[in-house]
Amino acid sequence: MATSMNHLFITIFLMAAYTAIAETNMLQDLCVADLSNDPAKVTPEDFYFIGLANAAATTNSSMGSAVTGANVEKIPGLNMMGVSISRIDYAPGGLNPPHFHPRASEAIFVLEGRLFVGFVTTSGKLISKHLNKGDVFVFPKALLHFQQNPNTATASVIAAFDSQLPGTQVVGPALFGANPPIPDDLLAKAFQLGPQEIQKIKGKFQPKK
Amino acid sequence: MATSMNHLFITIFLMAAYTAIAETNMLQDLCVADLSNDPAKVTPEDFYFIGLANAAATTNSSMGSAVTGANVEKIPGLNMMGVSISRIDYAPGGLNPPHFHPRASEAIFVLEGRLFVGFVTTSGKLISKHLNKGDVFVFPKALLHFQQNPNTATASVIAAFDSQLPGTQVVGPALFGANPPIPDDLLAKAFQLGPQEIQKIKGKFQPKK
Amino acid sequence: MATSMNHLFITIFLMAAYTAIAETNMLQDLCVADLSNDPAKVTPEDFYFIGLANAAATTNSSMGSAVTGANVEKIPGLNMMGVSISRIDYAPGGLNPPHFHPRASEAIFVLEGRLFVGFVTTSGKLISKHLNKGDVFVFPKALLHFQQNPNTATASVIAAFDSQLPGTQVVGPALFGANPPIPDDLLAKAFQLGPQEIQKIKGKFQPKK
Amino acid sequence: MATSMNHLFITIFLMAAYTAIAETNMLQDLCVADLSNDPAKVTPEDFYFIGLANAAATTNSSMGSAVTGANVEKIPGLNMMGVSISRIDYAPGGLNPPHFHPRASEAIFVLEGRLFVGFVTTSGKLISKHLNKGDVFVFPKALLHFQQNPNTATASVIAAFDSQLPGTQVVGPALFGANPPIPDDLLAKAFQLGPQEIQKIKGKFQPKK
Amino acid sequence: MATSMNHLFITIFLMAAYTAIAETNMLQDLCVADLSNDPAKVTPEDFYFIGLANAAATTNSSMGSAVTGANVEKIPGLNMMGVSISRIDYAPGGLNPPHFHPRASEAIFVLEGRLFVGFVTTSGKLISKHLNKGDVFVFPKALLHFQQNPNTATASVIAAFDSQLPGTQVVGPALFGANPPIPDDLLAKAFQLGPQEIQKIKGKFQPKK
Amino acid sequence: MATSMNHLFITIFLMAAYTAIAETNMLQDLCVADLSNDPAKVTPEDFYFIGLANAAATTNSSMGSAVTGANVEKIPGLNMMGVSISRIDYAPGGLNPPHFHPRASEAIFVLEGRLFVGFVTTSGKLISKHLNKGDVFVFPKALLHFQQNPNTATASVIAAFDSQLPGTQVVGPALFGANPPIPDDLLAKAFQLGPQEIQKIKGKFQPKK
Repeated sequence: MATSMNHLFITIFLMAAYTAIAETNMLQDLCVADLSNDPAKVTPEDFYFIGLANAAATTNSSMGSAVTGANVEKIPGLNMMGVSISRIDYAPGGLNPPHFHPRASEAIFVLEGRLFVGFVTTSGKLISKHLNKGDVFVFPKALLHFQQNPNTATASVIAAFDSQLPGTQVVGPALFGANPPIPDDLLAKAFQLGPQEIQKIKGKFQPKK
Repeated sequence: MATSMNHLFITIFLMAAYTAIAETNMLQDLCVADLSNDPAKVTPEDFYFIGLANAAATTNSSMGSAVTGANVEKIPGLNMMGVSISRIDYAPGGLNPPHFHPRASEAIFVLEGRLFVGFVTTSGKLISKHLNKGDVFVFPKALLHFQQNPNTATASVIAAFDSQLPGTQVVGPALFGANPPIPDDLLAKAFQLGPQEIQKIKGKFQPKK
Repeated sequence: MATSMNHLFITIFLMAAYTAIAETNMLQDLCVADLSNDPAKVTPEDFYFIGLANAAATTNSSMGSAVTGANVEKIPGLNMMGVSISRIDYAPGGLNPPHFHPRASEAIFVLEGRLFVGFVTTSGKLISKHLNKGDVFVFPKALLHFQQNPNTATASVIAAFDSQLPGTQVVGPALFGANPPIPDDLLAKAFQLGPQEIQKIKGKFQPKK
Repeated sequence: MATSMNHLFITIFLMAAYTAIAETNMLQDLCVADLSNDPAKVTPEDFYFIGLANAAATTNSSMGSAVTGANVEKIPGLNMMGVSISRIDYAPGGLNPPHFHPRASEAIFVLEGRLFVGFVTTSGKLISKHLNKGDVFVFPKALLHFQQNPNTATASVIAAFDSQLPGTQVVGPALFGANPPIPDDLLAKAFQLGPQEIQKIKGKFQPKK
Repeated sequence: MATSMNHLFITIFLMAAYTAIAETNMLQDLCVADLSNDPAKVTPEDFYFIGLANAAATTNSSMGSAVTGANVEKIPGLNMMGVSISRIDYAPGGLNPPHFHPRASEAIFVLEGRLFVGFVTTSGKLISKHLNKGDVFVFPKALLHFQQNPNTATASVIAAFDSQLPGTQVVGPALFGANPPIPDDLLAKAFQLGPQEIQKIKGKFQPKK
Repeated sequence: MATSMNHLFITIFLMAAYTAIAETNMLQDLCVADLSNDPAKVTPEDFYFIGLANAAATTNSSMGSAVTGANVEKIPGLNMMGVSISRIDYAPGGLNPPHFHPRASEAIFVLEGRLFVGFVTTSGKLISKHLNKGDVFVFPKALLHFQQNPNTATASVIAAFDSQLPGTQVVGPALFGANPPIPDDLLAKAFQLGPQEIQKIKGKFQPKK
């Protein structure tokens, strides 16, 4: 590697040090995500979160569902731990629409109510089931899945992930509400619809500003 | 663990031995996916594939594109190697519709023609670009992406993956052509359409039998 | 490597194929732990478990607690998914005594009741907290931790792990109830007790037969 | 993700960049743990350690043993290399008391003397053996294990770990010498002892200040 | 760990934060290797590279070959993606001499021309093959391999790697052109040559200044 | 995926189950590499090896060195543990010639004697050092390295690896003793020698039969 190349190399990795981190084999007991990294300053609050205690409001969602994450954004002590939890609440008839997590498998425990859940394999097979309170169901890593509340009562689940920040890509808003937008003709061909139908769907998924 | 538990444990793992394999740190030089596993029988053909030499036919695809994988299904010597290649060919106006690979990032090299490509982040941002012959573009791991041929000439790419079998989940057929089907009302709510519109889209995506 | 060495090599790895599997980057969508591995035979039941719905009996435990796993031993579809769930129930005053999971971090959600929980770092610091219903707390990977129910009501948690089978090593029975037993003098020195005191403790932890 | 969320996200990860690093697939040849990261400044001393040459004093240990690590704290060039070495010295009758390494398996080579060694599986089985000079023995990842010198001569081992910093949690001091202390009643129940007996053991394990 | 030890620990890891990063399970969608890490500043150019479009000059290489990488040094968006591409161009009779990639397997697609390629297993077996335009061949992780252009026309390949920066160690210059040099007597013994023959070879591999 | 494709998929993976295993996150405590996998049959001997106690003969090696592995081929209990040990013995003037381990970093402890050791980075820098008895030195993952005994007394080291079977590729025999042989003209160009000189070197490295 020539000198200039080396220099570029160093520069890029110095830059990368501000951003890039992978989770697998840990190098330390703890890795609390705060500025000081002074073990003497670690407190129990770094490993604690109170925000899943109550059902989240589902009224401001057109889908009738709300996801509350207890991940590394909320619990700095989760950094490098490879696990996180979410609570999902469903209004009567609510839907956690088709989505996937790029970085995690998911196992849910039904806290309350009933759900119709399912995932689709890459060979196109739907694996679905009606769940009752207390049931556990698994959604394999990075496959499309959904949960629907078919009842007139609310429902809730606790979801476990094998990632400190699983990420979520919801198909509807990702494709029809992207910013900048995906061109109409592309979506029209992908879904075998006309441009006007695409415009109509896009109208329902306002891009985030 | 009680005895019966131990017995179950053994049984499950004996069973698992027929199916479950992960790729990361290798344990051997080679791990050719054939029955004998006799190093003396390994041949150059185990590491070789001829099937990407020519453009695949795109005429029998409603999308006007065709993906040909050079993965572990075709090249047994790729087993445990963590890498594979695909060739994608596009008819004029052809589309490799929105999809993601549950197990891989992707980097493409444009062999021929021009393409409009893009991916969507989990925060809803579209990253897109017009590519020319010889350009390289990257689609991050397990994020929705697409390639479109906007020209009247054909196009082709060579795609590199960090998985011996990246898997592909195409949104349209996965949701509207699953087998058994995802209920109409669920999809209608997810895409903010009416049941009749869902039926219409489903008609375009025949489930595989 | 000489021929005989090669032969040994092959033999060992053929043998290993019946037992050894790691979890990280998956090679397939699913890897259900059953004999056939025929995707056509995969059913929703492979991803489902009903056994966490009710509190387990804690009466036959001297500790006043009971752990019920929803791991790959119960849910074959969890194979290679890297995640699992447990339910832990606590009698009034019950204790899930000091233990660790060799293969997992843990995040708990308090289903019911109150708990005093904590873990110890390798530098000897105790991180502990009193939890209420709905709280989340994290125990870092493979560190000693405990949960105690300080109340006169029962308590329960749902625990999430980043392993399909986290394993559990409880200090008391592991050291004082091992089979065959760890010699008295060794334990006496380790805990700075007399041999008679060790005998007394051992009497409380009957080795499993 | 809303803007404020994004901001939190960035903040946390900027913070994490000061602390969090995993070891698996390397990104560079070397990653010497010093401030400059200027490859031109890398020297042989970065990969070298002299501190295992002589037996460490075991007289100031109530256990009669001393562990000297040749890990990333001593050898900056070990950073990201996934391996480290320790030397353990034993006085006559000395004990390396029951402990585990949260981040590593261990293989030992007996440099000098004789040892009685063992580990306990999660199902409670003790695997133990008497070793002579030159013998090798393996302690599986994150399981409780010990080494005892049953002789009137000193003993020493060289231990290999699959981690640049395996971490060590010694049961006695972790539970009875934690700072702040684990409550007496909790330990009393865990070990089926009386509070006075717990106090007595705690007296032997002074918390680090 | 005593206080001074803790201090060293912190110091080393603060230092390491400037240099050390592993790739495996990602923690975020993107991790573009630039200073700001402000998602709002990510652009398509971060995922794009134009430099493989044309054959590189092979005239200034004694080997008659040129490797052009499209890796994280050129494409900051590749950071943490686990994949990269190279283009290799060969003059008539050109050779990509025996080398290996410490961090990657490689799969090549022949863009143009013909090649004789091969790798050697750790048990000394040569796996070689003559390739034509459009063929795919695999070189297993970190094994010695080569590509030779046996024709009077130029040749080119696109190579896929399962690493964002695979690294390359070419045997000839690594051993005979190291800086400072490897002693003559050592190389003479290793290759069973005389010191004068070693001097002659070294003369062909000038160390980089 | 069409039916025939699915069938191929299953077939390949059934075949793979006999051969392919990766090491990283373990799924069980133990994974002893023997046929039965019956935990009740695990014995201490599965974790034990006596073969490193004495120096190996170096007289039948033209290099004057001998490597004795204590890896998974010798210790079935090492399976999936991610670590192994070797003993290397050196005659006076002996050389462990330039080689690398495709699957491991290495840390050595000098048991006896003195050594001149070194490794070469991918940018061509030699990092070398003279070691004395008791010294520790690190060779980074998959980089070319060597150890030379410059003295008139014998020497020995204990080497630690972060792999249960690191693999070794020795440059001399790999390139000049491959079976079938690498063509003379290819090696001649790679090392800038004449075909006769290549023939002469090849004569010293007889391929294994």
